Amino acid sequence: MADNFRIERDAFGEIKVEADKYWGAQTERSLTNFKINQPFDRMPPAIIKAFGILKRAAATVNMSYGLPEDIGKAIQQAADEVISLKLLPHFPLVIWQTGSGTQSNMNANEVISNRAIEILGGEIGSKKPVHPNDHVNMSASSNDTFPTVMHIAAVMEIEEKLLPSLKALLATFQEKVKAFEKIIKIGRTHLQDATPLTLGQEFSGYATQLSYGIERIEATLSRLKLLAQGGTAVGTGLNTKNGFDVAVAAEVSKLTGTVFRTAPNKFEALAAHDAIVEASGALNTLACSLMKIANDIRYLGSGPRCGLGELSLPENEPGSSIMPGKVNPTQCEAITMVCAQVMGNNTAITVAGSQGQFELNVFKPVLIKNLLHSITLLADGMTSFKDNCVVGIQANENKIEKLLHESLMLVTCLNSKIGYDMASKVAKNAHKKGITLKQSALELEALTSDEFDRLVRPELMIAPK
Amino acid sequence: MADNFRIERDAFGEIKVEADKYWGAQTERSLTNFKINQPFDRMPPAIIKAFGILKRAAATVNMSYGLPEDIGKAIQQAADEVISLKLLPHFPLVIWQTGSGTQSNMNANEVISNRAIEILGGEIGSKKPVHPNDHVNMSASSNDTFPTVMHIAAVMEIEEKLLPSLKALLATFQEKVKAFEKIIKIGRTHLQDATPLTLGQEFSGYATQLSYGIERIEATLSRLKLLAQGGTAVGTGLNTKNGFDVAVAAEVSKLTGTVFRTAPNKFEALAAHDAIVEASGALNTLACSLMKIANDIRYLGSGPRCGLGELSLPENEPGSSIMPGKVNPTQCEAITMVCAQVMGNNTAITVAGSQGQFELNVFKPVLIKNLLHSITLLADGMTSFKDNCVVGIQANENKIEKLLHESLMLVTCLNSKIGYDMASKVAKNAHKKGITLKQSALELEALTSDEFDRLVRPELMIAPK
Amino acid sequence: MADNFRIERDAFGEIKVEADKYWGAQTERSLTNFKINQPFDRMPPAIIKAFGILKRAAATVNMSYGLPEDIGKAIQQAADEVISLKLLPHFPLVIWQTGSGTQSNMNANEVISNRAIEILGGEIGSKKPVHPNDHVNMSASSNDTFPTVMHIAAVMEIEEKLLPSLKALLATFQEKVKAFEKIIKIGRTHLQDATPLTLGQEFSGYATQLSYGIERIEATLSRLKLLAQGGTAVGTGLNTKNGFDVAVAAEVSKLTGTVFRTAPNKFEALAAHDAIVEASGALNTLACSLMKIANDIRYLGSGPRCGLGELSLPENEPGSSIMPGKVNPTQCEAITMVCAQVMGNNTAITVAGSQGQFELNVFKPVLIKNLLHSITLLADGMTSFKDNCVVGIQANENKIEKLLHESLMLVTCLNSKIGYDMASKVAKNAHKKGITLKQSALELEALTSDEFDRLVRPELMIAPK
Amino acid sequence: MADNFRIERDAFGEIKVEADKYWGAQTERSLTNFKINQPFDRMPPAIIKAFGILKRAAATVNMSYGLPEDIGKAIQQAADEVISLKLLPHFPLVIWQTGSGTQSNMNANEVISNRAIEILGGEIGSKKPVHPNDHVNMSASSNDTFPTVMHIAAVMEIEEKLLPSLKALLATFQEKVKAFEKIIKIGRTHLQDATPLTLGQEFSGYATQLSYGIERIEATLSRLKLLAQGGTAVGTGLNTKNGFDVAVAAEVSKLTGTVFRTAPNKFEALAAHDAIVEASGALNTLACSLMKIANDIRYLGSGPRCGLGELSLPENEPGSSIMPGKVNPTQCEAITMVCAQVMGNNTAITVAGSQGQFELNVFKPVLIKNLLHSITLLADGMTSFKDNCVVGIQANENKIEKLLHESLMLVTCLNSKIGYDMASKVAKNAHKKGITLKQSALELEALTSDEFDRLVRPELMIAPK
Repeated sequence: MADNFRIERDAFGEIKVEADKYWGAQTERSLTNFKINQPFDRMPPAIIKAFGILKRAAATVNMSYGLPEDIGKAIQQAADEVISLKLLPHFPLVIWQTGSGTQSNMNANEVISNRAIEILGGEIGSKKPVHPNDHVNMSASSNDTFPTVMHIAAVMEIEEKLLPSLKALLATFQEKVKAFEKIIKIGRTHLQDATPLTLGQEFSGYATQLSYGIERIEATLSRLKLLAQGGTAVGTGLNTKNGFDVAVAAEVSKLTGTVFRTAPNKFEALAAHDAIVEASGALNTLACSLMKIANDIRYLGSGPRCGLGELSLPENEPGSSIMPGKVNPTQCEAITMVCAQVMGNNTAITVAGSQGQFELNVFKPVLIKNLLHSITLLADGMTSFKDNCVVGIQANENKIEKLLHESLMLVTCLNSKIGYDMASKVAKNAHKKGITLKQSALELEALTSDEFDRLVRPELMIAPK
Repeated sequence: MADNFRIERDAFGEIKVEADKYWGAQTERSLTNFKINQPFDRMPPAIIKAFGILKRAAATVNMSYGLPEDIGKAIQQAADEVISLKLLPHFPLVIWQTGSGTQSNMNANEVISNRAIEILGGEIGSKKPVHPNDHVNMSASSNDTFPTVMHIAAVMEIEEKLLPSLKALLATFQEKVKAFEKIIKIGRTHLQDATPLTLGQEFSGYATQLSYGIERIEATLSRLKLLAQGGTAVGTGLNTKNGFDVAVAAEVSKLTGTVFRTAPNKFEALAAHDAIVEASGALNTLACSLMKIANDIRYLGSGPRCGLGELSLPENEPGSSIMPGKVNPTQCEAITMVCAQVMGNNTAITVAGSQGQFELNVFKPVLIKNLLHSITLLADGMTSFKDNCVVGIQANENKIEKLLHESLMLVTCLNSKIGYDMASKVAKNAHKKGITLKQSALELEALTSDEFDRLVRPELMIAPK
Repeated sequence: MADNFRIERDAFGEIKVEADKYWGAQTERSLTNFKINQPFDRMPPAIIKAFGILKRAAATVNMSYGLPEDIGKAIQQAADEVISLKLLPHFPLVIWQTGSGTQSNMNANEVISNRAIEILGGEIGSKKPVHPNDHVNMSASSNDTFPTVMHIAAVMEIEEKLLPSLKALLATFQEKVKAFEKIIKIGRTHLQDATPLTLGQEFSGYATQLSYGIERIEATLSRLKLLAQGGTAVGTGLNTKNGFDVAVAAEVSKLTGTVFRTAPNKFEALAAHDAIVEASGALNTLACSLMKIANDIRYLGSGPRCGLGELSLPENEPGSSIMPGKVNPTQCEAITMVCAQVMGNNTAITVAGSQGQFELNVFKPVLIKNLLHSITLLADGMTSFKDNCVVGIQANENKIEKLLHESLMLVTCLNSKIGYDMASKVAKNAHKKGITLKQSALELEALTSDEFDRLVRPELMIAPK
Repeated sequence: MADNFRIERDAFGEIKVEADKYWGAQTERSLTNFKINQPFDRMPPAIIKAFGILKRAAATVNMSYGLPEDIGKAIQQAADEVISLKLLPHFPLVIWQTGSGTQSNMNANEVISNRAIEILGGEIGSKKPVHPNDHVNMSASSNDTFPTVMHIAAVMEIEEKLLPSLKALLATFQEKVKAFEKIIKIGRTHLQDATPLTLGQEFSGYATQLSYGIERIEATLSRLKLLAQGGTAVGTGLNTKNGFDVAVAAEVSKLTGTVFRTAPNKFEALAAHDAIVEASGALNTLACSLMKIANDIRYLGSGPRCGLGELSLPENEPGSSIMPGKVNPTQCEAITMVCAQVMGNNTAITVAGSQGQFELNVFKPVLIKNLLHSITLLADGMTSFKDNCVVGIQANENKIEKLLHESLMLVTCLNSKIGYDMASKVAKNAHKKGITLKQSALELEALTSDEFDRLVRPELMIAPK
């Protein structure tokens, strides 16, 4: 047993930690004190990576303020390993912990200091020559560090995962708009047959929703790119030096390649997380868009015989072995489930975001967990939806044309020629007998077959005059 | 102007009140201090009625504890007028006021005392011989009174409006189950054609949802029927006498005809409103049921030509003047909007219900407003849905049969006769060529027309063997 | 009875309407068919006003496309009366109706045409010379009209009510920041005593939240300012002329004084309401901000003896008659109830916004009702909060200073002088004996009284070095 | 590579699977087609266990209907291993898949058949002698299987984890009620000083909330204990035999030790998941209770010097190293974060639960994931809260008594002796000068010190007379 454990210490005393883990006493205590859905609800990797970025940036800045160079460089090297996610198994804590995220901040401090000690040839757990608080957490408090990694992680996940996925889905829809621009189909309002439009027009609505979705999400970034670092415990910046906050933001920007700024008001940055609520609102709106789009697509693809059947969706897995053409819209199902989850996450974020108390909001882990969950689900979900569904959507032109011409809505084309009353009679006769408009018109001798074909032209009904 | 106003007084001093209004100083101040969506968000009538009931019950009990009989009787008479809603215009306050509902309790005290003064021939506003606090509010505090009227109002609205409406809707669906029991139709899973069932079976699912809805709502009543009265300011019952609480609950039961009990723990009854959250959860579940049912009905009624068209919904208002058969499912639209609102109200109630502080939850008005709103919307909405839609739903038997027989799902009936491989071939051939199963079977000489008709019998596919 | 009713007609036949009402057959039918929480949930006045604006603008544009001038002018005059809300009693419909808002559009068409007929000396109900459909609804469909009034109403309420109220509240907080800038107080994190900050700094956090709230709301306006008008029934613009959409948007801009644009994609504008969901997300974020702020203020004002007692809130109504200083934070209670409602409305909007179907979202009335409700509640609520609470907040400087100096957090000032170990001993001794730091320090002879006063200076702890 | 993979087959053809995994082709395809937050959002273990139970029960019943005994027994043995969670790594699928849970059902079928093949000495992947569909899924469809495991898992988690945890927390609070029954403290309403109560009474409110929480959750179990099995694809029970459904429910009851019944209506059981929504509503209510309780406790424990300080919470981890008595209420923070999540999960469940379509609700995985998440979070969260916080809560009797006697609320005791006016004067004088009531009374010579002590007796203020 002596081989498998080592002793770590904090203000509470000694505690045993598995020998092959870099974490220290405070991480170990959190594991004991917060046995809540371990290990499933672990702090997300994007947060661990952001800790690496921030600790590296802080080390760089602290070196300019007096942190010894050898220690600073070892911290940088260890932080780089955190950024690479190589040390992920050393971050075992779940989000159900102290609401300030302090224990995860200490987890980062402990892992980085022990790894830095190792790099420098010291004894892990000795806190020498690299101390988790004095050196890794230098000039910082959990209270400004955790909100900072929240913002770094959110911005990076949005910029590196969500927006590219959304833009790719938009591009795919735009291709469909083009491909379907000549296919005229029946419109449906109140689920009832309405005047025609092109399938391309219908898909242009979806593309527009996604395009606005990009605008919406981008509009939230400016406030997410403000960093709390430098506020320390209550927002005053006690124990930092002037300029520290600006320097850290600059260094984080350099490391991430995206421009962060120091929050002009650190009190807001610690005590409120409105920027997280705001971003979740934009994701919630995107979820509404995707729910609408995916619902349309699965209804338009319903069938093969007894549904609307206007679209064919790609078949990715066996449906019924004997039943040809039964393609379950499983990608639509997955993405709409994602949307329901994003809406739920938005409620969790709203409740948590409203409950800041005095100088601190202590719902930080649950806030960022839900936001990152929504980002990942939407990013992955849209990519899966695109690759495994949207790209392969095909129009069933025969069915589309059949429905269009069975529809009675086209009767309005006849008004000018045969008068409203006769047109109405033609429609009613067709409805009553279950025949087509043309059959009805010929039966009532309202006009000739040629005249009908010349007048009833859906392609004239899809734009203003 | 002297004619149109009178002077009312409270601890803050004098204030002018319109001469023809029974309310007093505290109501008037609330009108001035809380100009928030006046008059739209007024305290709901069900609460005003419940105030009447409670104040009448309290007067009766207080008379047994020493309230002079003439005063008690005048209060009873005035309270009866409140119960009848005759005095509704004298309750002008919105729910956006003090979170304990104190101002509405004072509104009730002021109106009843002034009306009782009038009955006894006194001068309105003089507080003699009937004092709003000393007599109408005798042995009570706003802190126990308002939660009591919350529960009285909720129970009465549920029992007198919601459950009857829900039961009537259930009965209507049960009639449809019976009427549709012989109509075999295609089933749909994942929106894709599946094995058949009867339309009656499909509607039996809806009926079962509603039937469980009744159970769910009834299961919440036992905790809603607990009354806070007797807890006074913090739950201890200070300034009441032993037995007062039990006597008031008994008197309220007598007046309402439903059995209320005094809450065994008054601290919970003032500081938490979990019973409201619980009841809202049951309504939220009913909203989910109705959303599902109404969505199904409008999709099954979609068309007239280009939708599923299995149901005909009653036409209650002009759709398209020229387009026969275009019946917008407006009742489905109204009830699904109601469901969305009930889900929203449930979130408001959840947030508000979680925010009690020490001895009092001060989100009382918003809690009861949302619960009563949900009750009324569901009650009225289901009645409207029933009367103007469900009752008149008719099956389009031709369309139903046509879809059923166009379906390829029936091919499974052939397995035992012609083997899985040939059955599969028949289905694929039909799918490829867009012909019926029968046409395909004959074309492939898999069996004779008679054999096909004898074997392919959907009526054997709608139950276990 | 003949005197009190007139006969109105639509495609369904005749129906009686009260003689003194301008509405017609379709409005009357809706009243009969949708008895759902009438009259409480009526279509909001802001929507009625927006109908007036839109119908006026459309008449102007239609005149340039051939609408006879006398008819057009009469429509304009009638529409002006709608804009003035003079005709509000003629708009009796509740939001629980057809999900496209068609019945409210017809209500507007009927009222304006009947009033225009009256202006022109015709017979009300005759549809001559002004026809509700042919003239008032010329070139329009409910399907593009209703989303247009949704956006007009939302933008005007945000710009004319919400933003001014929010900006005024911000200004009031900024005054408090200034007024409180010198008052040093204990900070609180995790509700526990922390390092000090100024009361002005604390309030600057609130001001920053509000200031970002303005940015957030303004960021949603560009998409709310896109108008659907010109899309007609399904988004194609069938039955309009080229340029109609642009001209209407220009005319609406002229009438409202704010710049609207025609929606570049009308399919999205009818079938989705993501812009409403997005705007609600911004309001939801503001609700989180206000919940936090109001919660802080009521806790800081708690007491008078047994709470934190750092703030005095204005007393607007009688609290306890005998208990001086008991000021219930009723404005905080009202605004936090408002916040709970806004969060609930956001859920209703999210659900409704996700449920568009093909060419139309049929949850339009519930969407706009909830958005306008949230706007009004926040606008009125913030004004009430400002006028009746924030303006009058005063710092209890004695209590603030007492708490600050009783705190043990100031011990950190002593580290450099007496060393960490002795400082820790001083704090522990003070904690154990319940004495002040100074008393403890003197008792332990850690330093002199003068030294203590010179070193323990909270004013050096409220900023970086 | 040949060593590390084997070939599995389904209707789509061949696919490579890692040689040491029991899963087959359909599982592998799902992994490829649904790369959405893998592996974090895997199907919860409770569902895998429920699959084991159900497949074992079905094998037993199927043996009585003709499943060969050797195959049946091998399936039972393999299913037992699934129940033991030994095979958990062979269930890699995430919940973001087909909305019917089909792929997880196939995962179970594939793993059990391959393991059973192995037990019987066959070749894994050969589907002989145990076929995933024909034998393991005999008489079943994913459409009835997945809802069945949803209910089994939910009931078992509630009965085995949630209720025991809740009951234990209740017992702990009841101990505190007893322990604190003599400690009289100031009451607080509107956060303002109010009349006194005992700390035991205050805690009795919490205990009552929890006690009702048990009732609420138990009230949902009767509908959760109904099993869909036997409904097969659309609810008709096609391809099952009469009595199969009842027999499976009986066998599941035997295996689990809790009584399940077959759902009387299978159409509802497949197409709706109202029972899940209902159960979530009960959990949501419990979350509101816990939010209230934990908020109270952390505020009552706030300090050590500048908060309310009436309670001491156990210190489980280092707070400030130099600051004695600063105990962050981290367990309160964790449980309130849990509550926010449960509220969010409830929204996700509500949205998903409302979206059934025709014969199937295809949001099954997201529904059960969120419900099980809420159950686990509450169960674990309450245990952690109890063990690490509630058990160790201590009353700071000195502080409680000090606050009580500083309060001015006790002045009401003097009314009867010195009259209302003098009592009021005493209170106002005390308030103005910041002195105690007693000091004020003596200063004003209202009564003697002895009289004061005899009259001002909070212990007479905590119950009705």
